[in-house]
Amino acid sequence: MRNIAIRVSYDGTDFNGYQIQPRGRTVQGELEKAIKHLTGEEVTLVGSGRTDAGVHAKGQVCNFRTTSAIPVERWAIALNTRLPGDIIILEAWEVPYEFHSSKSAKRKTYRYTIDNGKFPDVFSKRYRFHHPARLDVGAMRSGLSHLIGTHDYTSFTSTHSTKPSHIRTIYDARLIEEGSVLHIELTGNGFLYNMVRVIAGTMMFVGQGKLQPDDIKHILDGGDRSLAGPTAMPHALMLVDVEYDEKSE
Amino acid sequence: MRNIAIRVSYDGTDFNGYQIQPRGRTVQGELEKAIKHLTGEEVTLVGSGRTDAGVHAKGQVCNFRTTSAIPVERWAIALNTRLPGDIIILEAWEVPYEFHSSKSAKRKTYRYTIDNGKFPDVFSKRYRFHHPARLDVGAMRSGLSHLIGTHDYTSFTSTHSTKPSHIRTIYDARLIEEGSVLHIELTGNGFLYNMVRVIAGTMMFVGQGKLQPDDIKHILDGGDRSLAGPTAMPHALMLVDVEYDEKSE
Repeated sequence: MRNIAIRVSYDGTDFNGYQIQPRGRTVQGELEKAIKHLTGEEVTLVGSGRTDAGVHAKGQVCNFRTTSAIPVERWAIALNTRLPGDIIILEAWEVPYEFHSSKSAKRKTYRYTIDNGKFPDVFSKRYRFHHPARLDVGAMRSGLSHLIGTHDYTSFTSTHSTKPSHIRTIYDARLIEEGSVLHIELTGNGFLYNMVRVIAGTMMFVGQGKLQPDDIKHILDGGDRSLAGPTAMPHALMLVDVEYDEKSE
Repeated sequence: MRNIAIRVSYDGTDFNGYQIQPRGRTVQGELEKAIKHLTGEEVTLVGSGRTDAGVHAKGQVCNFRTTSAIPVERWAIALNTRLPGDIIILEAWEVPYEFHSSKSAKRKTYRYTIDNGKFPDVFSKRYRFHHPARLDVGAMRSGLSHLIGTHDYTSFTSTHSTKPSHIRTIYDARLIEEGSVLHIELTGNGFLYNMVRVIAGTMMFVGQGKLQPDDIKHILDGGDRSLAGPTAMPHALMLVDVEYDEKSE
């Protein structure tokens, strides 16, 4: 039995999220179908995280166990010809038997993209939240800085979170300006349900002046979801990268 | 009677081209409908050029005459709320009565984009031609240089061209590399039917080694469409900019 990891990019627009659901196309469902078509095996694909409906990925990592002898350098090409146009496998590599794309993940990076231009860009609107009113980027940067570190992020996760602990570590929280486009980029050891979207929605409140940058500290300390801003729309969220210890790569 | 110019961006994927047709959505049709909805007037919109089905525009320029007294700075916002999501008016300005977005145009810039990466980028595939086999960029640059100047471009236009003269001037022909993405960018005083797509298809032949860079000179001199390469796919073509004399701007 071999354990194969794949790095996958997808446009989440037409998916009902990563995880297999009773209804709708899912990323996991399409990938498992392609693997079955190629090998005849019914595998269970493990993803590093379950992106929501509408959320995109540049570098989602998944793994599955197989008895197939297909050489590792052939997997990406062979599966891509069996996948729909909105999913692409960028690479495949063999990992130790115990590798688990979610449990073994050390760092994840998500990006939330806001188009702060007067009019939306027609070519990128599927991937950006259009906010034509000018946002205070300096205030947003200052607000983001309070999120870095090890904290209980209860205020920044959905009340439907089922995790026993809401303590996570954010290593870096950046706001990158690219003309009138703003990217909020977060790197952490893990993210709770809706966490990046609640952070993005709260940062837009900061950018609008509805919250002050220092309020972020009090919101964190309060441990209450109702203190933070709204959950931002999913279509502007991208899972950028998942990192592992070197031996798994 | 006022003459209003608009700068328009559109995603050509779901349009049957710029010009009104008996069948299918067209850019001109959607814009005229929005103008009628706003002003009650049936105007005839003049475009700087008729982009084909599937071709995109970052900066198409159009003009129309109107008796409406709407201030010029309100037109873009008022029309955008009446337009579908794949067309955006970026700006509107008043031009002299005799201004004609096609006849008054001095320079146009088109870009043809080739994704030369192993796998296509899922987020940009609607706007790029995927060519996974490595292209010889140096040869393509060298081939392009022969196209600069004033020439008869009969070899590089569709045999269905109805223009009385095929003499045009290309001021600049660049190949821009952006990682594994190649942009062929042409600036000229005007382009014939399918001209940029035939040039792009021919440059891919040069990049594949099927033609030598110096063959381009002989193809130009031959004045015969069958000497050049294939007409490249429309979805990777973008009308980037149209320039006018300063007094029209």
